[in-house]
Amino acid sequence: MSNRVGVIGGGQLARMMTVPAINLGLELKVLAESDNSSASVATTTVGDYNDLQTVLDFARGVDVITFDHEHVPLHILEALEASGISVQPPSKALAHAQNKIVMRKALEAIGAPNPIWKAVKSANELESFIAEFGPEIIVKTPLGGYDGKGVRVIKSSAEVSDWLAKETLELLGGELLAEEKVAFTRELAQLSARNPSGEFRSWPVVETRQKNGVCSEVLAPAPNLSLDLVSSSREIAELISTSLEVTGNLAVEMFETRDGRLLVNELAMRPHNSGHFSIEGSTTSQFEQHLRAVLDLPLGETAMSSVAVMVNLLGVSEDKDFVENYPELMKDFPEAKVHSYDKAPRIGRKLGHITVVGENLDAALATANQARAVVLGVQ
Amino acid sequence: MSNRVGVIGGGQLARMMTVPAINLGLELKVLAESDNSSASVATTTVGDYNDLQTVLDFARGVDVITFDHEHVPLHILEALEASGISVQPPSKALAHAQNKIVMRKALEAIGAPNPIWKAVKSANELESFIAEFGPEIIVKTPLGGYDGKGVRVIKSSAEVSDWLAKETLELLGGELLAEEKVAFTRELAQLSARNPSGEFRSWPVVETRQKNGVCSEVLAPAPNLSLDLVSSSREIAELISTSLEVTGNLAVEMFETRDGRLLVNELAMRPHNSGHFSIEGSTTSQFEQHLRAVLDLPLGETAMSSVAVMVNLLGVSEDKDFVENYPELMKDFPEAKVHSYDKAPRIGRKLGHITVVGENLDAALATANQARAVVLGVQ
Repeated sequence: MSNRVGVIGGGQLARMMTVPAINLGLELKVLAESDNSSASVATTTVGDYNDLQTVLDFARGVDVITFDHEHVPLHILEALEASGISVQPPSKALAHAQNKIVMRKALEAIGAPNPIWKAVKSANELESFIAEFGPEIIVKTPLGGYDGKGVRVIKSSAEVSDWLAKETLELLGGELLAEEKVAFTRELAQLSARNPSGEFRSWPVVETRQKNGVCSEVLAPAPNLSLDLVSSSREIAELISTSLEVTGNLAVEMFETRDGRLLVNELAMRPHNSGHFSIEGSTTSQFEQHLRAVLDLPLGETAMSSVAVMVNLLGVSEDKDFVENYPELMKDFPEAKVHSYDKAPRIGRKLGHITVVGENLDAALATANQARAVVLGVQ
Repeated sequence: MSNRVGVIGGGQLARMMTVPAINLGLELKVLAESDNSSASVATTTVGDYNDLQTVLDFARGVDVITFDHEHVPLHILEALEASGISVQPPSKALAHAQNKIVMRKALEAIGAPNPIWKAVKSANELESFIAEFGPEIIVKTPLGGYDGKGVRVIKSSAEVSDWLAKETLELLGGELLAEEKVAFTRELAQLSARNPSGEFRSWPVVETRQKNGVCSEVLAPAPNLSLDLVSSSREIAELISTSLEVTGNLAVEMFETRDGRLLVNELAMRPHNSGHFSIEGSTTSQFEQHLRAVLDLPLGETAMSSVAVMVNLLGVSEDKDFVENYPELMKDFPEAKVHSYDKAPRIGRKLGHITVVGENLDAALATANQARAVVLGVQ
């Protein structure tokens, strides 16, 4: 049986994949950007994922290549595939998570629900879009955005004149993505996994709450969601996963609109912040599922026997590690499951998370928020 | 905060400690006997734990020393303590887990329930014990037994004449432990943890089922146990833990007698096979709790929200790794949580375990046993 997984990228997602690899006795190797990455426990190569030879050398020691992030250039992945290396998700699928315009076109083609959108290349095109769908609209760079970066809410094309400058526009993908500003009541995320043999499983859809464009809280399952939307959410994930031939995890970030529809906001094809709750909250964690899926092993049960709330721990200091506050945290919250990514503290950086499993979402959320305040020392 | 734990011994218990260390962002270092031990992911030193200098050098890089097994000689631990190194559990506590006669004496002194026992040095003393408490009795070597080794059921002193030979007897501790053959209905295990500050927490008492002296199945919590015995079990663990100043985990193996009493069989002061269910079955796993306890951090919640059954995976072949059978296992049992210790296969060797969490012990046990048969290829 193939059991050697190579992960490109040494962030917290690779770090959290090491746990199921240890549990299951799989071999996990990480190609990290630096010696002291979050995934250093499994790092076997330190190098640049933009360098084909580095990636090829790394890939030769494993059975399958997968990812901690979506930034590996497509031409590198295509070269790996041409060399007979198994890349999961394959480049043709991952392209949709790398480029938001490629994604919008594909979702439209398969009938998944997009907000109103248009690829624009000039201030004039953008002004026309604003005139029709404004006064406020969203503009995104097709490449390179994450955690709110590469996204602006604008009323005038002047507010993205920097992105529209010829040279910058080329670097960003040659076009910008204009989208209607969706009137939504909340954001949801549907996590699922699919293996190359076509088996598909999904976790319960969750509610995600952002602060300053960064995920702050996840409520699993999403409370008070109609059964129709629960079904739709799963169907959208399966449609995308199957049609685009995604393998491994797929996170579909969605808006629940004021008029009761779901619209796809973003896609990620890897473990995702919205799925960290599954470590304690589900029979199979998203990290175990991703490893199973990319190795084409049968997928694990995704049921939840309780509810779960996850809150992110974003840095509040440039020097103090929140691990210092474990004594207070653990004394007051013996039920809180705290995760540290072992990253250097920086204000606003994702340094860890806390999950609280329970019978009641409101109570779990209150506990998780109190625990977060204590461990971050901000209560 | 102290966050560097050094574990002496590179077996599966050290391996399973690496998971909470990664989750919590603690530093875990292992002194292993060989390069390719089960805990190789965290091995920083390969060496002999009988060599004081090796252990001292290893200990200088961590905040606390703890154990994967109880075989480190007491004089080594005492030398560490004399050098100001934190050893948890301390040598004075661990002595009771190393020597069964020392344990029996201490349990008697604190009023914990022993079977009838006697330290014997000769065939004559043994024959007197057999005459009074036989026809069958149990003889144990005070040092070095595990998984049924160092234990015999005898009717005549001639059956342990090898152990009574002068030279062997000295190696075994100078005496043998004779015990009544307890008329028991089943075996139980009470797992708990205590930190140096004195905080104590226990998991629900479990039923353990052995085959050929080796743990085969664990049912958590123990079914159909009277509330009186549930309380007694916890009280016995707290009495022992507190009186002997145990730190870290304490496993108390007990007999439930035909006349409704509990008698202590064995003690272990570390994570224990009877507690593996806690990885998925409890809010805090025994491996996380042990790390918290030895670092003198507050202990985690030990409640179970479901029942759990754990079955050991003992080797059935000298060459085939059960990981090869993951495709069949995972297809048929998506709810089974399988753990591999990444050890070379050998007949009868503990190579891994499976845990099934559910609402009903009988159903979970049936599933776990079927899953075991499939992954071992013996169905």
